[in-house]
Amino acid sequence: MNAEILAVGSELLLGQISNTNAKFISSQLSELGINVYYHTVVGDNAQRLEEAISIAESRADLIIFSGGLGPTKDDLTKETIARHLGVTLEFDDIALTYIEQFFAKRGRPMTDNNRKQALILAGSEVLANHHGMAPGMILTKDERTYILLPGPPKELEPMFQFEAKPKLSAMLNTGGVILSHVMRFYGIGEAELEVRVQAILDSQTNPTVAPLASDGEVTLRVTAKAETEQEAQQLIAAKVAEIQALVGDYQYGIDDDSLASKTVEMLLDNQLTISAAESLTAGLFQSELAEIPGVGDALVGGVVTYTEEAKIKQLGISKKLLTTHGIVSSECAAAMASAVREKFDTNIGIGLTGAAGPTAHDHQPVGTVWIGIAIGDEKPITYLLHLSGMRNTNRLRAAKFTCHYLMQLLEERGFKKR
Amino acid sequence: MNAEILAVGSELLLGQISNTNAKFISSQLSELGINVYYHTVVGDNAQRLEEAISIAESRADLIIFSGGLGPTKDDLTKETIARHLGVTLEFDDIALTYIEQFFAKRGRPMTDNNRKQALILAGSEVLANHHGMAPGMILTKDERTYILLPGPPKELEPMFQFEAKPKLSAMLNTGGVILSHVMRFYGIGEAELEVRVQAILDSQTNPTVAPLASDGEVTLRVTAKAETEQEAQQLIAAKVAEIQALVGDYQYGIDDDSLASKTVEMLLDNQLTISAAESLTAGLFQSELAEIPGVGDALVGGVVTYTEEAKIKQLGISKKLLTTHGIVSSECAAAMASAVREKFDTNIGIGLTGAAGPTAHDHQPVGTVWIGIAIGDEKPITYLLHLSGMRNTNRLRAAKFTCHYLMQLLEERGFKKR
Repeated sequence: MNAEILAVGSELLLGQISNTNAKFISSQLSELGINVYYHTVVGDNAQRLEEAISIAESRADLIIFSGGLGPTKDDLTKETIARHLGVTLEFDDIALTYIEQFFAKRGRPMTDNNRKQALILAGSEVLANHHGMAPGMILTKDERTYILLPGPPKELEPMFQFEAKPKLSAMLNTGGVILSHVMRFYGIGEAELEVRVQAILDSQTNPTVAPLASDGEVTLRVTAKAETEQEAQQLIAAKVAEIQALVGDYQYGIDDDSLASKTVEMLLDNQLTISAAESLTAGLFQSELAEIPGVGDALVGGVVTYTEEAKIKQLGISKKLLTTHGIVSSECAAAMASAVREKFDTNIGIGLTGAAGPTAHDHQPVGTVWIGIAIGDEKPITYLLHLSGMRNTNRLRAAKFTCHYLMQLLEERGFKKR
Repeated sequence: MNAEILAVGSELLLGQISNTNAKFISSQLSELGINVYYHTVVGDNAQRLEEAISIAESRADLIIFSGGLGPTKDDLTKETIARHLGVTLEFDDIALTYIEQFFAKRGRPMTDNNRKQALILAGSEVLANHHGMAPGMILTKDERTYILLPGPPKELEPMFQFEAKPKLSAMLNTGGVILSHVMRFYGIGEAELEVRVQAILDSQTNPTVAPLASDGEVTLRVTAKAETEQEAQQLIAAKVAEIQALVGDYQYGIDDDSLASKTVEMLLDNQLTISAAESLTAGLFQSELAEIPGVGDALVGGVVTYTEEAKIKQLGISKKLLTTHGIVSSECAAAMASAVREKFDTNIGIGLTGAAGPTAHDHQPVGTVWIGIAIGDEKPITYLLHLSGMRNTNRLRAAKFTCHYLMQLLEERGFKKR
């Protein structure tokens, strides 16, 4: 089965939003083993949409539409497909009742425009919309399947995943599976990682191995096709072992892991508490940890000491240390880490100070960051970063490197890591 | 001039990344008044790419390619276009020298693959790449213009903006301009805002008015076409005034403003200092403010008090208050705001406490948030939110609402707002 994804919406062509729906649907279809050969975006224009449909029909047997199912005049996906295929539109009773109730509850009059959303292609099967008013639909005609989905991602994503995907899966008679496994790396650049696994990248067939970099992290996606799930798992496991032999030191997680989620997991597993004193990151490190539910058993809290005065007054760092060594210094990061650990009575204390940009700070060039990590009564360990990004990229990288180094340190000290 | 954007890369069709390049190029072309009628994405496959080129040629006179200019075997955009147009590929001396120097500096051998990146279409003009090795190019043949850009956004965006756009602008002889102006709103839902400006949305011609919602914010993009820039500015100003008469109370900024940037601007303009005590947001409010350069003159710092113990020990909040009123309460938010303001000796103190999710906190349902704002010696004002998002959406909304309410309060007290 070869698919094309056809997004309808002038806001995409005006560059107001990205076509994230195509990304989402593509990754879902890839899990089903359905090849996607084209994405097309067309505006709210019936003639151009119909031409795009004809082209899609010439090269795909599954066409998935997103957008244009709403109540306004601009929404013309259904109407255009109906005319193109020569099928009529008819009201779906369930969808109509749902829309009527929606307006009745709010005491607002329901216009004909809203009623229009309950129209479906005759002969199609409805895909329920649990997050909006416009139902989706799936129709097979002349051995070609058409799926219509609403544009807003919060409606489209659950509708595809829970309504359309099971139907597609049932239609497929592939007898095979495609599985993907994502390996996540930190502390190594994309170029350097690719050089180290070059032989694997060059010789890949099945599994395939695809590198991708974003936000300073690098991932390798290992994808295997096989007759059975077990066989695919075995192919992946063998390739993962090969890769780990080369760059395993930099791998911090898999699939949906994040540096923060792995750090919190390690803290909770080892019953360790943490606090942080942040200058350039100004709370971002703690906020990243707090993205993870359950963090309250590890993160006690911390301080943001953005000014020199705050560092002195809130953490008791001596004016002399700041004058002698500077605010952006190993000594300052270490003192911040120790002070916050004592103040919050935690196992671990973190100190973060640096020049985020856009201008130098305390005579240190933009991108200079010192991270201090105090574990128990040990002398704090400090790390120097030279980052090359813009202000907020540097702040985020500083927070991520803190997770990376903290996990390394804890592992070296024998704390368990999943 | 009608354009089509043709992105080349199997990673797009596999759903590994979004086609953000198409969004970027589209918004740039819209500024030039060039209509974009289609986006197409095709994989790293010469035959399908050539078919896509033929289709694009049948409906566009400007075709902009992204991706497929790199060193690997998968990169075949240039080669395919060369064959399709019947032009040869030749080495560009400047690009070749740049690549050779890159490898010489690093003492690494340069392979033929890397050399390949310096090949350009005969007769094309080179678009310099200041952030990578592969040059872009622009070629006009048979009254149709082809622009080839590299895939990585950090290479493509500056190349388009500073190399390709001026050339396109010079080629255009439109005698007209298109200008856009974005109005930014907070504290009002998209549906509610649309209802209030319904008459304007229904009757729009020139300027057009397009609503868009994301991350709890709503924007209206007002776009005018006119003979001169001045005329377009006048059209926009008149429409903006009409809109402001209806929903001006909720507008916080324009264009690239953010709630944080407007808040920091207002604090700096009025020489006000701020500190914050954060629980559910765990530093996110302070970190959002710290995204803005120059914030150091306003943000002194603050505390993250994630646990009950930290609230008592670090802020001196009484155990009795927490037992009587609860951790997620107006009283607690007010006490946090007052305590942090005194501790950091600032004009303004912020207190944030709530149940971010995924489970209830202190018997309060997920999404319950109390914001406390203490200005000078005034009794703190508190605000209650009932948010309906997931954990981290709720945390971000709480930080954004804090900016929104703080600006309102300061304006009410006569502090100047730009």
